[in-house]
Amino acid sequence: MKYSVGHTGRVILLRLDEGEDVLESLESLASKEHIESGIFFVIGSLKEGSLVSGAKTDEPPVIPFWQRIRKNHEILGIGNIFQTEGKPKIHLHAAAARGDKVRLGCLREKSKVFLVEEIIIFELLGMEAIREKDQRTGLFLLKIH
Amino acid sequence: MKYSVGHTGRVILLRLDEGEDVLESLESLASKEHIESGIFFVIGSLKEGSLVSGAKTDEPPVIPFWQRIRKNHEILGIGNIFQTEGKPKIHLHAAAARGDKVRLGCLREKSKVFLVEEIIIFELLGMEAIREKDQRTGLFLLKIH
Amino acid sequence: MKYSVGHTGRVILLRLDEGEDVLESLESLASKEHIESGIFFVIGSLKEGSLVSGAKTDEPPVIPFWQRIRKNHEILGIGNIFQTEGKPKIHLHAAAARGDKVRLGCLREKSKVFLVEEIIIFELLGMEAIREKDQRTGLFLLKIH
Repeated sequence: MKYSVGHTGRVILLRLDEGEDVLESLESLASKEHIESGIFFVIGSLKEGSLVSGAKTDEPPVIPFWQRIRKNHEILGIGNIFQTEGKPKIHLHAAAARGDKVRLGCLREKSKVFLVEEIIIFELLGMEAIREKDQRTGLFLLKIH
Repeated sequence: MKYSVGHTGRVILLRLDEGEDVLESLESLASKEHIESGIFFVIGSLKEGSLVSGAKTDEPPVIPFWQRIRKNHEILGIGNIFQTEGKPKIHLHAAAARGDKVRLGCLREKSKVFLVEEIIIFELLGMEAIREKDQRTGLFLLKIH
Repeated sequence: MKYSVGHTGRVILLRLDEGEDVLESLESLASKEHIESGIFFVIGSLKEGSLVSGAKTDEPPVIPFWQRIRKNHEILGIGNIFQTEGKPKIHLHAAAARGDKVRLGCLREKSKVFLVEEIIIFELLGMEAIREKDQRTGLFLLKIH
């Protein structure tokens, strides 16, 4: 267990529209508004996306299960923003449903909003943390000083 | 992408009891406490509810998939509060499970709490946003000034 | 409906590592940092855990459905911290997925982190609430003064 104590800063309400890319839009906004650390919440719909939903074995190397989203899904997600090499990096876990089929995982690569995505970001101040590439797993892990 | 920058206000811890209606209770509390904008988080159980879990096609008109909750389900939800024609309107996405069956969608219409619902609302101040009926889709979409 | 109005305090960013226990770690941190009330958000992975995903009947006694997590799952969770007899008690609802299998429920008993768990806790100040054992159901329910 490692932890860092900080406090809330600005809150940003963000609306993404049809066809926009979720991770790219969040990174671009975080850069523009100089958000170093943050947590955000997503509700909306997605018509394209890729979720990593676990690793095939409990030992490295991490070989992911992929779930591909095609056609519109309702989503609910929780993510965070920390810096990697001076640039904001997004980590977002989302659940997605279409009819009675539900998926859940870590959103990666390209995605496309369906209709609208409503995102609320809480900026966090005073956090002594960055995201750094871990040699053993190849993942960008949170490093708390 | 459109966004508005604000900050946190009050935080309200809300407990709903057996049989209470989730959306109606939240709208009533938001009116009484004059919460113009907010984000909230729900954990608890629901014994009745209706979730929209996607649209049948990616093109309008939006014809929803419905998932009906009967008997008690554990739930987890994220929602927001914005004003429509001067009154608070709730937008809530929730995942619900009973045994190994999981559903996810946008909670609509009537619902009934099972045992208890624990809700924490963060009031947001300074947000220049309302929810307005969109002619093309018939949905109440978030409009950021 | 009962509610209490407060405001945000500190924000704590917590990283749990491989093999750590989620509920135990959160209770231990809350004790050490004197967090009386809070809400937290979890994204990461879990390789062991037990979820209560509903009760078998809508009438007491509450006989739970259990979902057991074995092998690594991606997770997303929302929880809160309130005091029971002067000690912090955690209530956490989480969704967990491995491949195309998704589960959701109330995390109980022992659990084990896979790789890493990223948790962000918002301390809540001014909340007049504790968690107390309810005689009828045997559950620790939130009591708002």
